[in-house]
Parts: sequence; C-alpha cells; structure tokens
Amino acid sequence: MARKASLSGFPEWLPNERLVELHILDTLRRTFELHGFGNVETRAVETVGQLLRKGEIDKEVYGISRLQADEPATGDDPNALALHFDLTVPFARYVVENAGHLSFPFRRYQIQKVWRGERPQEGRFREFTQADIDVVGDGKLPFKYDVELALVIAEALSALPIGDFKLRVNNRKLAEGFYLGLGLADTAGVLRNIDKLEKIGADKVKTLLIDEVGATGEQADAALALAQIRTEDTSFVDQVRALGVEHELLEEGLAELGEVVGMAVRRAPGRVVADLSIARGLDYYTGTVYETVLVGDEKLGSICSGGRYESLATKGSRTFPGVGLSIGVTRLVSRMLGDGSVTASRSVPTAVYVTLANDDAWAEAQDVAAQLRSRGISAEVASSAEKFGKQIKFADKRGIPFVWFTQADGTHEVKDIRSGEQVAADPATWSPAPEDLTPRVGTAAV
Amino acid sequence: MARKASLSGFPEWLPNERLVELHILDTLRRTFELHGFGNVETRAVETVGQLLRKGEIDKEVYGISRLQADEPATGDDPNALALHFDLTVPFARYVVENAGHLSFPFRRYQIQKVWRGERPQEGRFREFTQADIDVVGDGKLPFKYDVELALVIAEALSALPIGDFKLRVNNRKLAEGFYLGLGLADTAGVLRNIDKLEKIGADKVKTLLIDEVGATGEQADAALALAQIRTEDTSFVDQVRALGVEHELLEEGLAELGEVVGMAVRRAPGRVVADLSIARGLDYYTGTVYETVLVGDEKLGSICSGGRYESLATKGSRTFPGVGLSIGVTRLVSRMLGDGSVTASRSVPTAVYVTLANDDAWAEAQDVAAQLRSRGISAEVASSAEKFGKQIKFADKRGIPFVWFTQADGTHEVKDIRSGEQVAADPATWSPAPEDLTPRVGTAAV
Repeated sequence: MARKASLSGFPEWLPNERLVELHILDTLRRTFELHGFGNVETRAVETVGQLLRKGEIDKEVYGISRLQADEPATGDDPNALALHFDLTVPFARYVVENAGHLSFPFRRYQIQKVWRGERPQEGRFREFTQADIDVVGDGKLPFKYDVELALVIAEALSALPIGDFKLRVNNRKLAEGFYLGLGLADTAGVLRNIDKLEKIGADKVKTLLIDEVGATGEQADAALALAQIRTEDTSFVDQVRALGVEHELLEEGLAELGEVVGMAVRRAPGRVVADLSIARGLDYYTGTVYETVLVGDEKLGSICSGGRYESLATKGSRTFPGVGLSIGVTRLVSRMLGDGSVTASRSVPTAVYVTLANDDAWAEAQDVAAQLRSRGISAEVASSAEKFGKQIKFADKRGIPFVWFTQADGTHEVKDIRSGEQVAADPATWSPAPEDLTPRVGTAAV
Repeated sequence: MARKASLSGFPEWLPNERLVELHILDTLRRTFELHGFGNVETRAVETVGQLLRKGEIDKEVYGISRLQADEPATGDDPNALALHFDLTVPFARYVVENAGHLSFPFRRYQIQKVWRGERPQEGRFREFTQADIDVVGDGKLPFKYDVELALVIAEALSALPIGDFKLRVNNRKLAEGFYLGLGLADTAGVLRNIDKLEKIGADKVKTLLIDEVGATGEQADAALALAQIRTEDTSFVDQVRALGVEHELLEEGLAELGEVVGMAVRRAPGRVVADLSIARGLDYYTGTVYETVLVGDEKLGSICSGGRYESLATKGSRTFPGVGLSIGVTRLVSRMLGDGSVTASRSVPTAVYVTLANDDAWAEAQDVAAQLRSRGISAEVASSAEKFGKQIKFADKRGIPFVWFTQADGTHEVKDIRSGEQVAADPATWSPAPEDLTPRVGTAAV
C-alpha cells in the first residue's frame, strides 16, 4: 500500500490514502471543537532566534532563504528564517504577540505540517503533520486542565481507527520529590539515567546512578523501584508510599497524578495508566507528563506526547503556564496505510455518476447532478456519451456506488453498481443509503 | 481588525478571524467534494530543478537547507530543496509519479500554503493559502471540462461571503487565430503588448504594436478592437466576426469560448463574462483562460485564475492535458478581515459553558457536557467554582451563548446570556437553536 516516497522523509498519499488521513484530521478537529478548543494556524516560518531559544536541536532545523538573492540562513543569524519543527514554539510566540487579544485560559487546537532535517526512518519523517491541543493561562492555570486534557485526548484517540492505546502519565514533581527525599540532589542526572532503563536494563542503570550521580546502592535501588511502578488506578500511591520516602514535592506529585488517574479510571476506563518509568520529557515539563503507545505496537514509539509547562511563554513579568499534547498524525496514518489496517471505501467523494445518452444531454445531466448536490449528494457528470458499459466502468473503477440514467422520455433510473439493482428514481427526492453518501473510512474487513 | 503581521508578508489570524478563514476553506471543500473532486496534498518541498523547469521566477523561490549541516540551497543545484510557490507544479509532478495509481480523467482539489519571496504589499504575501481544482487527462481531455470548471468555480465563489464577482474568460486560440488571420505572426509579441492596455492605454499600445511587433496601423487597430470586446453572453462571436478576420484557429477559439459562455449564461447567470482583453496567462495556457475579480474591488487583482494546459505534464511519450483554477484564499480572507465585512459570531466553538456550584461538582459537570457533546453540542466545563457572575462573564467574553447550571437538587437550568432568559433543561435532550450550534460566519450586520 504505502509506496516509497519520491523524496525520502517527505511522504505523500494517493487519493484513497488521503481520505484516510482526512478522516483522522476531521475526527480530531470535531472532538477538539466539541470540547471548546478553537483553531489557530501559525506561519510555517519562525526566526532562527525564536526556534533555537531552547538551544538543543539546531541541526534538525531547516533554514530558508531566497534563491540567488539573500545570504543563506545560518544558525548564527537569529533573524534568519527557518521552518518550525513543532507547534509549541510558534504557539508560545503567538500567545505572547497576541496576549492583548486573547481570553485566558485560552484553549486552542492547531493542526499543521512541521519539518525536521533528521535522518528519515520508520515512523520518522522530515515533513509531517502534528495535531496539538493546549490550554494556556495568564499567570496561573488550574490543575483541572491537566486532568481534562488527558480525558480529551483519550476521547479523541478512541474515536480513531487505531485499536487499543495506553496514555501513560507521570509527574515530574513526584519523581523529583522522591529523589530529593532519598537524598539525591542531582535529580536531572537521575532522570537522565532512569530514561535509559528500557534500553540498557536495570543493572546498568544502577551502575550509572552510582558512578555518575553518586547514589548509594540503596538509593539507586529505590529510584529503580519507583520506575517499576505502573498501575491502571490510583494504587500507585500506596506502592510509592511503601518505598518509605518522604518529601513535600513528592506529596504534591502524588496528589496531582492521583487526580489525573483517578478521574481517568472513571471517565476513560482502561485508557490511562500511571507509569512511573516515564522520564522522557521530565526535563522540560514541570509537572504532568503524558506519552501514548499503541497496544501491541509499542515499538512505533509515542504517538501522542505532552505535559505541563509552568512557563510556556513569558512577556515581561507576565508568565503563561500551559498544558498540552501533540498527536503525531503522519506517524499514525503511515502505520495504518503501511499495514493496510485502515482503508477508504472508495477513492473519490462522488456518490452518483450521471451518465450521458448523447453529447447534447450534458446540460440536462448537470441539472440532475445539481438537484442531487443541493441535497448534499456528491455527483459528477460524464464528459462524453461513450457506450454505457464504458461509462459504468469509469464509475466502478473509482468505487462510485451509483450510476444515473435519464431515459429518452425524461424518466430517470439509478443503478447500484455493486448489486446491479436498477430502479426508477427522481433526482429531487432520491438519496443513497447514509453509509454510501460519503467515502467510509475504517478498519479493513476483519 | 487585521493587525500588522509580526513578520512582514506572513499573516496570522486571531481565533475569531481564523473562524472566517476556516469557513471559507470548509465551504470550498464542500463545493469541490459535491462535484466529485478528491483531495490531494503534496509535500511543501520540491527540488529546485522541478520548480525552475519553466525558468522564470527563480528569485521568488525560497530554498531550504539544514542549518549548520548542508550546503545552503542555491538555484545552481537542481537537487537542492525549495518550498513550492504554487500548487500546479507539485501537482504535475504528483500526476507523473503516480500515473499508474490514478484513474484519468483525474479530478482533484488541493488546499495548501505556498511561499514566494516577493516584496509584500497589499494583497500580496510571502506565505499564503491557495485552493486549486484541476482535471487532468491521460492523452486527451474533453473540452467539456473547461465548461464544467467555470461552473464549479462560479458555484464555489457564489457560496462565499464575498459579494458579486465576475469570472472573465478568454481563449488563446481565439486571440492567436485572430492575430494570425490579421497577418501578425509574432502572436506572443502582440499579447505581451495587449496585456499593457489597462496600464498604459490604447494609444501607447498601438505605438508599441507598430514599433515592436511590426504591425501596420490597421493591424494594430484591429488587435485593439478585439481587446475591447466584453459580453455577458455569446454575442461576442458576432462582434469578432464583424471585424472581418478569418482563421481556422480563430474559429476554434470562438467555438470553445462560446461553449463556456453559452452554458454559463444558463447555469451561472451574471457570473461569467467573455472578456477578450485578457492577455495575462495566454502565454502559458493553450486554450481557455480564466481570471476573476470582485465587482467594485477590481484593483485587488484576480482572486481566482487558471486555464487549460495542453500539456500539464509529460511522462515519456505520454502527455497529460489539464484544466484548472486556483483561488487566492489568503488574499480574499485578508480583504474580508481588513474591511471588517465578514465576521464570526463568536471566537470559540463552544455553545454551552457548564458552570460549577462548587469544586467537587467538576465530574458531574463533565457528565452534563459529555451528554451535550454526544449530540454534537460543543461544551466546556469551568475549571474552578468562582462566583457565578465571574463564570458567566468568562463565557460572555468569548461569545459563548449559553451557560448551564446544575442545582443542589440535581435539576438543571440553562441561561441564554444574550437575552438573560433562563429555563429548566435536561442535558439528554436540550439543544440550542440551530443557528447557535456553531459559530456563524457571514457579512457583518447590514
């Protein structure tokens, strides 16, 4: 199904594949809007200074410059222009620039292409689409939004034909507080090594914690024990307490994570887990951290990640805290198309193909089509009066379910190409079955 | 309304403005899909070689290159990457690459950002959105599609809140045939000078035709007379014949343009004019040429242009003729927002704001909201139980029409903020009036 991209890392879809992607995008948009998120679109271009503010991924950024006219963009010139590599940095700039025009807490979704000059590989692209939701406050942002965003995302992902998934949630305050309570002051160092757990295993991580972070064997064991905890309810709280560590920040983190998971147990059962092994992202998020895997396809990596920033953006003395998540749409769509698990029922929006008995009948056929369209039925008129068999084949090849015939006496008939059934029909009143109105997108016949 | 872009030529909209743009995009998509056009999205990036194939606008192209890593993109390296400046060049490449997977004639719409490194000015941007429709054939493409596309575009533009417009149509065969019939072999030279008519006037164009193209006074007068012809019906045919010029190609052009305008008189009255002054585009299109102006705002320039290419693309000995049009969405939206002629009824999708009597009521409030959402009603829950007056103000500020209250006894009431009317309501059955369900976008109160 998914063909090789003609430019590595820059995938493009065939029309029937694009219908699958559009279905994903439409479903996300609908869910976000039902939850009151408004849309924002930012320019594709930011200044290099803006993009590299956090200063770590400069090699992934694509600079842009007018051919033959300008100095080419470099990382040295903060005013040079470059393509955004995510939607968070542009959104933070947008919030600061437009703070006077926005109402806070401000909820927005944003669905756009982003670009990264990384080496392309399975599930990684140089151009891809992200779908982000964030809520940003002015000065403060109630913790309830951390809970709500987990629920919105669980609902949005549940509406997609992606099978089972787990939204894994952790909290930086919980981990940091635990390490501090243990007596490990270099919390960033602990996190950096805990993050390697899945890759190198507990023994090697323990050695690193002892050698690099200066932990005792007991401290290292405790930190590793914390990272083993994974529960689908709030029982993680007792498991953490059983480790016997105490710290004010730990209590705060336990309460926050408990609130997210407690509410999720009730409102999105089986979708959200407290996973205390998650360290990735804990270095830049300040509280809640989310990541999401497809059950049975964990190696695809996270399809939706995010968290809480105490300071998404600042403007003078004003601080804008935020919480949000980003869905990797292209990664999801690429997987669906690659394994053929999701397909569209036809390759065109057309529901009815209006045939021509002769070339002079084109205008009348357009009248028929216009009547259908006025009732929301996609209709297309043949461009020349070839043999009916050929006209039917034209429709069939595209998966168009119905062909329309106007007889010499002005009466009409419509044929269901799939069943062969042909019946009298009135263009002012006939409708296809609701499931034939538009292309259906779903999991392939099981 | 429209604020100054923080980066000149790269406009961004506020949430309520973006609702206007989304309305335009949704309306176009709906019209195109009702006419059987499927969606295609191509990558933002092409090779420089692909983009500069026609070789004339290289200075407008933005090259891209990874900061610090690659040689910067230049016009000299055909394999360097650059951002597309329109959607036609990428579509032609897409057709060639995927010819084996597409069914011809292939109808597609494409709505994407494009980039041009031009100096920004009124109605001209460096990043802007185009909405294109094209039909492309394999080897041949019936002329009926030239007629159909004029009708589809007239219908699409009529569905937008842009007021009256004129789709001006001309035909290269008509103009070229006329010049050849006159005895002027340098038809490109004649067209180039006729194109200056509006800017420098008939007298100066006549001088240029004589001096540069070698026309006699009579030939120049006849070419100018042709360019004066503009009719809303097929009477242009008689007016051309009255000039007494004969040529086979002229006849072909008259028949083609007559077919477009004749059908438009019937199906899109008042929208389409035969305008024989149009020379722009005649150098690269091979038959029909379209451009579109807003009545009363002609100085904005064309908001929708296109035409017929006998060879949109080639693959070996295979030729793909096409006919299509491109709508300048950003130019239209920028005008609507700039003069405040079109607005959204609120700045968020939310129809109902569910208030909290106390902080423990959040989960129950989410139950109410979930019931509303399950019936397609956008609902948002307050994040903390502030005073009701403050919660109502929160909703009012965003233009949310309704606030919801759950009483201590478990009964519900909903208040229309605008009228102040408050009534008992059941979250399982209550609905807002259809016009309050989603933000309305339309011309400002008249």
